[in-house]
Amino acid sequence: MADINSQFEIGVTTGPIRGSRKIHVGPLKVAMREIDLEPSSGEPPVRVYDTSGPYTDPEARIDISTGLPLLRRQWQLDRGDVEEYDAREVKPEDNGQLGPDRSGGVPGYPNVAKRVLRAKPGKNLSQMHYAKQGIITPEMEYVAERENLGRARLKEYDRDGGNSWGAAIPDYVTPEFVRDEVARGRAIIPSNVNHPESEPMAIGRNFLVKINANIGNSAVASDVAQEVDKMVWAIRWGADTVMDLSTGRNIHDTREWIIRNSPVPIGTVPIYQALEKVGGIAEELTWEVFRDTLIEQAEQGVDYFTIHAGVRLPYVPLAANRVTGIVSRGGSIMAKWCLAHHKESFLYDHFDEITEICKAYDIAYSLGDGLRPGSIADANDEAQFAELYTLGELTKRAWEQDVQVMIEGPGHVPMHKIKENMDKQLEACGEAPFYTLGPLVTDIAPGYDHITSGIGAAQIGWYGTAMLCYVTPKEHLGLPDRDDVKVGVVTYKLAAHAADLAKGHPAAKVRDDALSKARFEFRWRDQFNLSLDPDTAEQYHDQTLPAEGAKTAHFCSMCGPKFCSMKISQEVREFAKLQNQSTDEFVAAEEAEKGMAEMSKVYDETGRELYMGAGDREHD
Amino acid sequence: MADINSQFEIGVTTGPIRGSRKIHVGPLKVAMREIDLEPSSGEPPVRVYDTSGPYTDPEARIDISTGLPLLRRQWQLDRGDVEEYDAREVKPEDNGQLGPDRSGGVPGYPNVAKRVLRAKPGKNLSQMHYAKQGIITPEMEYVAERENLGRARLKEYDRDGGNSWGAAIPDYVTPEFVRDEVARGRAIIPSNVNHPESEPMAIGRNFLVKINANIGNSAVASDVAQEVDKMVWAIRWGADTVMDLSTGRNIHDTREWIIRNSPVPIGTVPIYQALEKVGGIAEELTWEVFRDTLIEQAEQGVDYFTIHAGVRLPYVPLAANRVTGIVSRGGSIMAKWCLAHHKESFLYDHFDEITEICKAYDIAYSLGDGLRPGSIADANDEAQFAELYTLGELTKRAWEQDVQVMIEGPGHVPMHKIKENMDKQLEACGEAPFYTLGPLVTDIAPGYDHITSGIGAAQIGWYGTAMLCYVTPKEHLGLPDRDDVKVGVVTYKLAAHAADLAKGHPAAKVRDDALSKARFEFRWRDQFNLSLDPDTAEQYHDQTLPAEGAKTAHFCSMCGPKFCSMKISQEVREFAKLQNQSTDEFVAAEEAEKGMAEMSKVYDETGRELYMGAGDREHD
Repeated sequence: MADINSQFEIGVTTGPIRGSRKIHVGPLKVAMREIDLEPSSGEPPVRVYDTSGPYTDPEARIDISTGLPLLRRQWQLDRGDVEEYDAREVKPEDNGQLGPDRSGGVPGYPNVAKRVLRAKPGKNLSQMHYAKQGIITPEMEYVAERENLGRARLKEYDRDGGNSWGAAIPDYVTPEFVRDEVARGRAIIPSNVNHPESEPMAIGRNFLVKINANIGNSAVASDVAQEVDKMVWAIRWGADTVMDLSTGRNIHDTREWIIRNSPVPIGTVPIYQALEKVGGIAEELTWEVFRDTLIEQAEQGVDYFTIHAGVRLPYVPLAANRVTGIVSRGGSIMAKWCLAHHKESFLYDHFDEITEICKAYDIAYSLGDGLRPGSIADANDEAQFAELYTLGELTKRAWEQDVQVMIEGPGHVPMHKIKENMDKQLEACGEAPFYTLGPLVTDIAPGYDHITSGIGAAQIGWYGTAMLCYVTPKEHLGLPDRDDVKVGVVTYKLAAHAADLAKGHPAAKVRDDALSKARFEFRWRDQFNLSLDPDTAEQYHDQTLPAEGAKTAHFCSMCGPKFCSMKISQEVREFAKLQNQSTDEFVAAEEAEKGMAEMSKVYDETGRELYMGAGDREHD
Repeated sequence: MADINSQFEIGVTTGPIRGSRKIHVGPLKVAMREIDLEPSSGEPPVRVYDTSGPYTDPEARIDISTGLPLLRRQWQLDRGDVEEYDAREVKPEDNGQLGPDRSGGVPGYPNVAKRVLRAKPGKNLSQMHYAKQGIITPEMEYVAERENLGRARLKEYDRDGGNSWGAAIPDYVTPEFVRDEVARGRAIIPSNVNHPESEPMAIGRNFLVKINANIGNSAVASDVAQEVDKMVWAIRWGADTVMDLSTGRNIHDTREWIIRNSPVPIGTVPIYQALEKVGGIAEELTWEVFRDTLIEQAEQGVDYFTIHAGVRLPYVPLAANRVTGIVSRGGSIMAKWCLAHHKESFLYDHFDEITEICKAYDIAYSLGDGLRPGSIADANDEAQFAELYTLGELTKRAWEQDVQVMIEGPGHVPMHKIKENMDKQLEACGEAPFYTLGPLVTDIAPGYDHITSGIGAAQIGWYGTAMLCYVTPKEHLGLPDRDDVKVGVVTYKLAAHAADLAKGHPAAKVRDDALSKARFEFRWRDQFNLSLDPDTAEQYHDQTLPAEGAKTAHFCSMCGPKFCSMKISQEVREFAKLQNQSTDEFVAAEEAEKGMAEMSKVYDETGRELYMGAGDREHD
């Protein structure tokens, strides 16, 4: 291993996110971050959700060639329902048509497990299965602690209502609540038995809104080392899950490197790899090749599979007259297969067999929307909704085997058509979690599609979507680099948070309020540290006022000292404190006379000097 | 003037926006842009709204020291209701407490008019006044042509419904419609008689959603030349109006340079300059100083004034217990004044006199929301809505003198509280246009507040807000530079467009569809040219695939040639063309059998070769 390390280097970013400390809460040592505020604030630290894994823990020893600790392994073994067996042999074509490409300097993963886990015959490893039996797993307990974010300390906190559109968000998350949500199918905890490195997390409408980041090389660009680095980078900024959408060479190896080093669930679209194995010719795909690919990926530890089983033969013509046809890669592959063979999709026909595999490893379905609209013009059309209702039918079939399911959604949808997507999904799919890509609310801003889609994502998240798949500035134009990944993740994190706020999630508003108070009190460092991206916030501040003293200054560059409304308004507050007049009541215009008289008295007695000196102090 | 030019240089960006031509439509020569598509598309050019003025016209001669042509001057004179008089002498304190600062290398504007225009005694220059008399002005005709964007050519176009929340958007905009909207107070055409350089535009719920860009120096940074450059840069990318929020030295001169060179309406907050004149001490503000400032700015040609007349004395204590107090600069200045003097606001007390000035020059009110919330915590509180209802009262008082009014709105509002802002504004202010800043839907993302606010802006625009004030990435952190201005403008342009789409504006979807078709047909250059920011779109594309040939390639870097769903789906379409099966009807799952049989037949007869060769062609 030392030899291997000397031959190549996969660089990943480690160390704390600035201004915060990694903490581990409760008996399960649930990872979170805590942001300490300046002592002058008199406020406790703010606890925030943390997806970054051991990489931000200064105590952790990171070795990419060894992978992360097996957090969940003992829990799995304790349940007594797993068996160890010899893993499938890796074949050359698992790494693409031409086999692995070692020219990039990155070898196959050095510590591939020869023995892997699966359910004993007749057993079912799905979290949903345990939940339906009434069993609260450690995974569920972990999720409960994680979702609370110290909420118990916030009992006095104003929940501020929100409008959750019929969701059932609790004031406090108990392990039993998590169990119940998973049993009902309203939440999933993706947790492949062969990915024990993952920190449990829930995707569901009654939990914090999650985000996914896509990475992966294509035939045109990117390599293994870059993708591992992107994964670590994406979770640093908040990606709750990562999908490896690689399609080029080294596809098996890339995935191995990523999973062994990922503390978040990893999703894939297995049809991409299957297509590689048949030389890229969709018509030559077979159930056997596909099934073999599922086993290969199940043994590696993929936590959820995107399966486009809703692209049924009769729906394909519905997409023919669209402005942008079929834009899902998996969807178009399956459409081509169906037409070429004039047969029903093998994914649909073999769906229950796929479910058998899922339950043996606890892989969640992410039922793919192969017929999602690729433009505003095609939003909410017959092809899209025909598929959605089939996904609903498949959800129920998966649930019959207690396999966890989420449903993928669009795509490109103008704002007035977004809610219909959520409403129909809830109805068609029995409240299984919705997982949408954006949606983009206009097509006219390539280069800014993280924003066009962030607008749609915030809205559909508010309406009830459980996970938002990010879009980067490079969408429709090129492959995202590291900077694009970060911008995409932060944009989606803020959209998800805006959704949490609007739903009235009790743990959401704490951070907004802490940051706003810091802003009002000119605690600049607290503002930066409480931000989703402290580095950028500080950098922007310093572009105008680089002096160290400006970080304690009671003004900023926008208004300068004289015009600072925050400063003036602090003076107003001090004055108001001196008067007895209630601020809780609406002081109607007709009471102005009385109010003025009262204020006049107080001002004359006490307040005058507060203001007379202000003009001078402003130049401090 | 040659001398002056040799001494200093104000650089502005000129030349066409790539891929488009400036055109001038109709007898009034209304400026628009036309984007030509590749001949292979078989489609007509796409006409888009253009705010960039003569700067993007290769025929125009740009000389910053001379200013723009006086487009509206003859129209004004023809109405026979204006008189010319000697302008107020510029005083040293008009340029700040310390007088003008010439060290930056930029002198006062060389061609200041000594004679300016105003209404003859007893006359009223307001567009609303003409509208109420039943007069259709050239300004209204210009607006009608401009708003149509060639809509007459799109009669066959699918308007696609939308949900306009009770707006009354017409299929086609006639001059009479414009007149009627202005007469009702539902739209304004800001058009100070002393800013004849401006190209008429309307702000109203039944027109395209507009955006404003703020520029202006502060005591800390920025200079005159930079601000003129930013103005030209902002309108290049789509700013419909520009507010000059300068507060430092050279405030009068900066404004003169900007107005003389601006083809879009210019707004200001006169209290900023008035405060400079009294040494920055709010308590020393007087009606006389303020009035003098209004006249000064009216004669320069400011098109709309933000007046915080709704910050009444009794409302100030309502803001005292807020998390972020009063965040409006003008609002906090007035609050301080009210408390210090224990008197009602002089802006409120002298409101009708301000209105007298407005009607003499046709300056529109932008009634400021001095008590807008500065954080999620303070959204929709009593202070905010108390002020809003006062703004409604003032709107009616302004309308009694036929003066145009729009209403400023927040600020920071979580998504579930946005619509209440729009609903209350419509009710309180008699459908006067709403003009909001964002709103930001969360406080936790400084550095990304163009996005947090773009999310809110798109929504409130959809609900009926007529103009969206942009927010740049530097919001809360520093002064925007040129790059920030562009990102802010493009973000707001896409938000405004998303709102137009969702409202079902008949001229909106054309551009989305044209771009989507170009995307589906791999017309890369058309995609770039149809974008809000063609330069960035092309640059992002070229980062992954720089070769010139990639711009005609039938794939892109995201999926590579093999996985291109667009390509596969074009093949699906070709196949579907060959069959008779209707695509307009929903093909239910139970019809699958029949569909399959039909397809099988067609496929065997004609389609097979379409697919057999695809695997090879993918490597082309």
